[in-house]
Amino acid sequence: MKKTNDNASLWSPLVNGLDPYVPGEQPATEGLIKLNTNESPYPPSPQALAAIADAAGDKLRLYPDPESSRLKATIADYFAVESENVFVGNGSDEVLAHAFNAFFRQDKPILFPDLTYSFYPVYCQLYNIDYQLTPLNADFEIDIADYKVPNGGIIFPNPNAPTAIGLVRQSIIDLLEANPDSVVIVDEAYIDYAQRSNAEITADSVASVVDLVQQYNNLLVVHTLSKSRAFAGMRIGYAIGHPHLIDGLQRVKNSFNSYPVDRLAEIAAIASFQDESYFQSTKDKVIASRQLLVDGLEALNFDCLPSSANFVLVTQNNLNAKQLAEQLREHKIIVRYFATPRIAEFIRITIGTEEQNQQLLAVVSDLLSNNVKI
Amino acid sequence: MKKTNDNASLWSPLVNGLDPYVPGEQPATEGLIKLNTNESPYPPSPQALAAIADAAGDKLRLYPDPESSRLKATIADYFAVESENVFVGNGSDEVLAHAFNAFFRQDKPILFPDLTYSFYPVYCQLYNIDYQLTPLNADFEIDIADYKVPNGGIIFPNPNAPTAIGLVRQSIIDLLEANPDSVVIVDEAYIDYAQRSNAEITADSVASVVDLVQQYNNLLVVHTLSKSRAFAGMRIGYAIGHPHLIDGLQRVKNSFNSYPVDRLAEIAAIASFQDESYFQSTKDKVIASRQLLVDGLEALNFDCLPSSANFVLVTQNNLNAKQLAEQLREHKIIVRYFATPRIAEFIRITIGTEEQNQQLLAVVSDLLSNNVKI
Repeated sequence: MKKTNDNASLWSPLVNGLDPYVPGEQPATEGLIKLNTNESPYPPSPQALAAIADAAGDKLRLYPDPESSRLKATIADYFAVESENVFVGNGSDEVLAHAFNAFFRQDKPILFPDLTYSFYPVYCQLYNIDYQLTPLNADFEIDIADYKVPNGGIIFPNPNAPTAIGLVRQSIIDLLEANPDSVVIVDEAYIDYAQRSNAEITADSVASVVDLVQQYNNLLVVHTLSKSRAFAGMRIGYAIGHPHLIDGLQRVKNSFNSYPVDRLAEIAAIASFQDESYFQSTKDKVIASRQLLVDGLEALNFDCLPSSANFVLVTQNNLNAKQLAEQLREHKIIVRYFATPRIAEFIRITIGTEEQNQQLLAVVSDLLSNNVKI
Repeated sequence: MKKTNDNASLWSPLVNGLDPYVPGEQPATEGLIKLNTNESPYPPSPQALAAIADAAGDKLRLYPDPESSRLKATIADYFAVESENVFVGNGSDEVLAHAFNAFFRQDKPILFPDLTYSFYPVYCQLYNIDYQLTPLNADFEIDIADYKVPNGGIIFPNPNAPTAIGLVRQSIIDLLEANPDSVVIVDEAYIDYAQRSNAEITADSVASVVDLVQQYNNLLVVHTLSKSRAFAGMRIGYAIGHPHLIDGLQRVKNSFNSYPVDRLAEIAAIASFQDESYFQSTKDKVIASRQLLVDGLEALNFDCLPSSANFVLVTQNNLNAKQLAEQLREHKIIVRYFATPRIAEFIRITIGTEEQNQQLLAVVSDLLSNNVKI
């Protein structure tokens, strides 16, 4: 039997040039306080978990509904839009990938912030899309004046990641008005943490712009169930926009991608949207804990960027950020450090439970005391 | 407030040129006998269903293991290979898409049969891959002599779809020997239905070639849990091959695609592989039912292509295939008709339960009697 040559590369030539993303750490060790990947500290809705357990039966042998019609109708009902305004996918990363393909393959470069979600340049590489980084201002804010230049599209998270800083609704309206021929994607992965459930929303609020899809056909809003709905362990995301944009997404999906949302994910998502009180109470708890954590960190002389999300980006003049992350790790607390220009002296802390946040504060306080002694 | 122009297309120009795939029918009506999409007539392993129900808890708030290490180890153990020989994805369609990207973007066209899985040309379109259709012979078989031409890669299902005809192991070995510089992908979605659990496997058997990945570094075998393991409602697929090929797949996945197998899918798959007796008994039941169905159809003067899969492609001289499918539908039995050259006088019938198959035979028998009367 002839042995084929082990050393000859059988890859497509392009694979040799790839620079693979290194996924964030998912530690196998139990007992760690995991404040590094912005997951919810609270479980998914008990009703949604019960719906999954109920659905673990014979029907899993059948393919899912390729149109996810029930889930689309549920989301449409929740946001007071129509099913034709809703696209669903296997996590918001997949929705974003389809959106880059459907809208951003234009002659002009697309625009996004210099500090933002790390997958935007990856999707540009995937689809050969030219992009122009638009620096955040000195306060790490998006300045919409910087986005009033010719472009093939605009995307940013609101609130932004990893800064956690939100943009008010009026600024997004101004941006949409200034760019009527560009698709503007607002990636609202963390928007549910911007306001308490009883807050009054005004033009000056950091809040969802889903309602604006009725007025602006160039607005696409992307959401995930991985954060405020605590389903990071499944993959469910969606987009809301004008039917013309949704049709573009459907065409891309149905041309290239045959895998709809799976049965358990669809059932879990529907049940989650039907359990409004649990959703509101858990996200309100995170917002309340965030304030206490920020207060505690400020008392330890940290600077905390104003957060509208379930994480905070913080720095302390007397601490080296990278070393701080390493020291916290030794105390079984994992946070995120980015060796990135402008934020290399910051760490990003996911808001945990009240108890987890207090443990973090206690460890940081100890570290500072010890440092002072040195 | 300025209204943007509803009529201006905001799509990427390429979207206008797309010809979207129309997904197969997933009827919402209960009470239909669904023999149209090659799903298992039996539910997934009860142990796997119990594992899903158990896993519907707090941990779903956490992202899955990006490497799916436990699932890879389970699959490696099952097939007596190493984890470095295993790649996992969200259904075999996703695995295939990554494989086309990783291996088939070559200067020379890739080869696949003229009658085969409809997604192969779709992936070629997605990645701008040139392909050359290689016609099945007059008996609807793959003739490996046709694949001994310069090529950028080879892919076919074994058994093939929608013919259900299998290729024996020796032919695949010959193909691998003749094409040492091409990746040969054998898409074994239906291979578990080729042989009963107690069958002796020889070079002349239609059977899995997973074991050959140890000898041929150009062989990639792709499997799905959607058929013989009855998990079409979730999306779990995998590939087994030389570590060099697996590394290529990982690079593509980690460069462009951040979504690993979700937590429930990983848990379900692991439990399914651990329940060997259920797996063997259900697939043996399908194989036994297939023989009875073929016998029954032949008694009604059908020609049935020899099937190594959980479906049969059949024709009857006195019946118009398209009308037969429509008439079966009126009797609440759904089968698949393809308006495709060469097989336009065939229908594809998924093997159902024994009872479903008998109902199908009874309806067909009635239709034939009525036709004779006319």
